[in-house]
Amino acid sequence: MIKIRIVSVGKTKEAWLEQALAEYLQRLKAQVIFEFCWCKDDVALTALVERANSEKVIGLDPNGQLMTSERFAEFFDRQVVEGGSKVTFVIGGADGLPSVLKTNLNLISLSPLTFTHQITRLILIEQIYRAIEILKGSKYHKGSQ
Amino acid sequence: MIKIRIVSVGKTKEAWLEQALAEYLQRLKAQVIFEFCWCKDDVALTALVERANSEKVIGLDPNGQLMTSERFAEFFDRQVVEGGSKVTFVIGGADGLPSVLKTNLNLISLSPLTFTHQITRLILIEQIYRAIEILKGSKYHKGSQ
Repeated sequence: MIKIRIVSVGKTKEAWLEQALAEYLQRLKAQVIFEFCWCKDDVALTALVERANSEKVIGLDPNGQLMTSERFAEFFDRQVVEGGSKVTFVIGGADGLPSVLKTNLNLISLSPLTFTHQITRLILIEQIYRAIEILKGSKYHKGSQ
Repeated sequence: MIKIRIVSVGKTKEAWLEQALAEYLQRLKAQVIFEFCWCKDDVALTALVERANSEKVIGLDPNGQLMTSERFAEFFDRQVVEGGSKVTFVIGGADGLPSVLKTNLNLISLSPLTFTHQITRLILIEQIYRAIEILKGSKYHKGSQ
């Protein structure tokens, strides 16, 4: 079982997002356990990430590496293997990730566009689902963009 | 009033997407009229786009131009001005845009990642909303990614 933690600043509960996430969480429930952590500010976010030093921690940042879904699948697979099936993704607040995390974390970018936290979370979880389907060789990965 | 048409192959009605889109459509209702067109296949999509030759038509394609939200705002503004306030965005089917449209249209890309049509539509509408807020100079555009 893969354990994925998604850490972000500020809790947002929008009904549509909960519904969309529920769909992917349901599809992934045999393979992945998700944990969502909410930090009240950058200080709490940094402290939480620093305590997670035994696992793989990935930051989502506009200056991070852009990749295709196929490349993300390989990247994700490597993180899971190297992290002993434990991977944490960190989404920054309104001003992005705190600079200490920008320096210390392995950074990826979902797009040069800026997204809301809600849309970022949805994209990330759909890409994790897509990565697992790509690695399995299923037919899911035939979407347009 | 800006008129934006979003054309895609295959109708998908997912409750969470309708709810998410409704939120942005509500926020934009004083400035933008959206029209959603569904084509049953690539032939119908191509025919519909070819009839729209008097307005600005933009294709969403993985090989299109990647841009930041600020650049997208400038790009969007230019399309609106040059298109006499009428702009069409075309989202391809499972295999992307038909090749004739890839050749003839102005192509942009939301990300090197592959998204579902649903997520593509959500990202596009949120970016249009964000573009209008950027052009107005409002505080909305301070999201993380």
